[in-house]
Amino acid sequence: MTDLELMSSLAEEEKTKILLIVLDGLGGLPMTPEGPTELEAARTPNLDALAARSICGLSTAVAPGITPGSGPGHLSLFGYDPIKCLVKRGVLSALGIGFDLQPEDLAARGNFCSVDPETGVITDRRAGRIGSELGARLCEKLSQVQLAEVDQVFVKPVKEYRFTLILRGADLEDGLTDTDPQETGVPPLPVKATRPEAEETAQLINRWLDKAREVLAADAEENDHPANSCNLRGLSKEPGLPKMREIYKLRCGAIATYPMYRGVAKLAGMDILPTGDAIEDEVETLKENWDDYDFFFFHVKKVDSRGEDGDFDAKAAVIEHFDQVLPDIMDLEPDVVIVTGDHSTPAIWKAHSWHELPVLLWSRFIRPDGAREFGERACMTGGLGHINHVDLMPLAMANAGRLAKYGA
Amino acid sequence: MTDLELMSSLAEEEKTKILLIVLDGLGGLPMTPEGPTELEAARTPNLDALAARSICGLSTAVAPGITPGSGPGHLSLFGYDPIKCLVKRGVLSALGIGFDLQPEDLAARGNFCSVDPETGVITDRRAGRIGSELGARLCEKLSQVQLAEVDQVFVKPVKEYRFTLILRGADLEDGLTDTDPQETGVPPLPVKATRPEAEETAQLINRWLDKAREVLAADAEENDHPANSCNLRGLSKEPGLPKMREIYKLRCGAIATYPMYRGVAKLAGMDILPTGDAIEDEVETLKENWDDYDFFFFHVKKVDSRGEDGDFDAKAAVIEHFDQVLPDIMDLEPDVVIVTGDHSTPAIWKAHSWHELPVLLWSRFIRPDGAREFGERACMTGGLGHINHVDLMPLAMANAGRLAKYGA
Repeated sequence: MTDLELMSSLAEEEKTKILLIVLDGLGGLPMTPEGPTELEAARTPNLDALAARSICGLSTAVAPGITPGSGPGHLSLFGYDPIKCLVKRGVLSALGIGFDLQPEDLAARGNFCSVDPETGVITDRRAGRIGSELGARLCEKLSQVQLAEVDQVFVKPVKEYRFTLILRGADLEDGLTDTDPQETGVPPLPVKATRPEAEETAQLINRWLDKAREVLAADAEENDHPANSCNLRGLSKEPGLPKMREIYKLRCGAIATYPMYRGVAKLAGMDILPTGDAIEDEVETLKENWDDYDFFFFHVKKVDSRGEDGDFDAKAAVIEHFDQVLPDIMDLEPDVVIVTGDHSTPAIWKAHSWHELPVLLWSRFIRPDGAREFGERACMTGGLGHINHVDLMPLAMANAGRLAKYGA
Repeated sequence: MTDLELMSSLAEEEKTKILLIVLDGLGGLPMTPEGPTELEAARTPNLDALAARSICGLSTAVAPGITPGSGPGHLSLFGYDPIKCLVKRGVLSALGIGFDLQPEDLAARGNFCSVDPETGVITDRRAGRIGSELGARLCEKLSQVQLAEVDQVFVKPVKEYRFTLILRGADLEDGLTDTDPQETGVPPLPVKATRPEAEETAQLINRWLDKAREVLAADAEENDHPANSCNLRGLSKEPGLPKMREIYKLRCGAIATYPMYRGVAKLAGMDILPTGDAIEDEVETLKENWDDYDFFFFHVKKVDSRGEDGDFDAKAAVIEHFDQVLPDIMDLEPDVVIVTGDHSTPAIWKAHSWHELPVLLWSRFIRPDGAREFGERACMTGGLGHINHVDLMPLAMANAGRLAKYGA
């Protein structure tokens, strides 16, 4: 891996354009040992033709055997070491609901839970998986629990028993432990500081939790529901990553339909380009902004969604849908194109997985290999070999003629 | 990567001989998507026959996407981490002109430039690209600018507007900034120390620059030329690398026709074997010295030169020329042979590039693979897979039976 300081010392301004296309959860598995993967089963004449003119390979998003969440899967594609640049759950939760997180904000992922009113021990870590409607009403109520010491406390529903807590104010420090003991039969843990500077913030949050739990206990008693307490995890501030503009000297635009991916792109310093929900809308946005950026992150979400559903055919259909718009994208005449995913989501696994991602890299300066179609097996013998996501941006930069020689 | 301390703890004396053949800038690209690379187009029956008996692969000189200069490209071949062991421009410039750099010397790459006599701002960073003759005369003149505090100041012409400055004396420290602001319309910068120990050296060099610029201004006025000032970059001392004799317990000889490569070999502690300009002369030198060394670095420069010229056929012709002498080399019965390059120089790119290098490793103890010829595409599916230059020396050592078992 090339470190970001070296990269920024070598990066040069050029007129070339780089397009990073991320088909979320692209990598797949056969449903039967002899069968094709979703990508191999999909009819993708345009991707196949592009692969035949590209250099292909298989890429590891984080490390062998590691299943990436959306944060690490994308940060590594943007060239950040996904281990060093871990974005914690609180920040990701805030990004995932499209919350406009500020550098001073402290965010936490919250779960409503059930506790025994007598003993205080947790009886259900997810409060019987209460519905989103009740969850939203409880968030409304908790939003009224404010603290004199901070400017504002936000409590935002995520889904069902999940919420996001954001504290906004000066002097909030991260380095804080979770309250969720990850088991039942014990009480929630207090928030503790893992470094001295976070001591006051820990006490502040514990005070908020005391008040919030009182409110929840009263509401649960009154309305007869199981969500009489809550826990917090992944308390964190946004990590203050070096921005892609500084690292790569690229004007970067992100085209993504889901808040999570817009959020991760924002952490990397990209401009978020407003777009519609359909893939065609995203292509339209790409066209409209083509002249104003040097780098585009183009994200297609639904490949992953159908993989998580376990729907092999539907996942293949989303890939086919993307394939149909590829010629319109290539008509824009990018100088470098990468197509890959942030992680695999095999339909047979119904979740993110650790499997390597098929990747193609096209430019005028690649050595063509034997891969004649875009698929996991074709990429397995491709000229890129087995590569890592963090190495893709340096390769894209090189192919765009945007990296100076290292050493005289 | 195996670190050098581990390597030296495992290295053992043996009678075996290792031959590292570096065809400078070997890696190439097709001129058209379907076409061959320079190496693939070259008629190389001897390299092909050797490749068929070897294990082959593609090797990254520094890191994916990084285009190596000659320094890093060779240091990694000699087993040094090319990021940690960066040799700066001043030292490389001195090595490139064959200057016999001593450990206490401080070297800088110099450029003659033009400044506005009234305001002192730079108007041309390369002094109108003055010719080598004027450059040499100015160096002669600047050689008379000496300093009481150092033993000697050398000013040596490189080419056109480029020169090398070397200060020789005790107590010179590196950790110094460049004077070249990399833009016109602003004055040259003063040399600053990046660490306290270098403070005095910085002041010393600034004093030399004041005097040197006075001399240049007067000469330019008198003789009506644009080189009325100068800038310094990459001020540095030789990096004091551990020597290959200590790391590998090998007696190392270098056969190279250009000063730069002899210089880098010297940094690694090799003996520099005097040789003539032709490849045949280099082979003769190899024969003459065969009994006296365990390791030879055999460098063929012109492959790179023709790539930089953008002359595909001429680059292929140099490779063919080398192929013709290969049987004479193999007749010496080396135990391990590696053939590769320090970086790619595709004719279509006309410069060093980031592309992986074809590599073959021959010994009696390799697993032959399917590669039946020596070329980028054949190596793409070779048994070494995708490898890194820094790993080649450990493999050579192992194949030479010169590495003890690690751990009991």
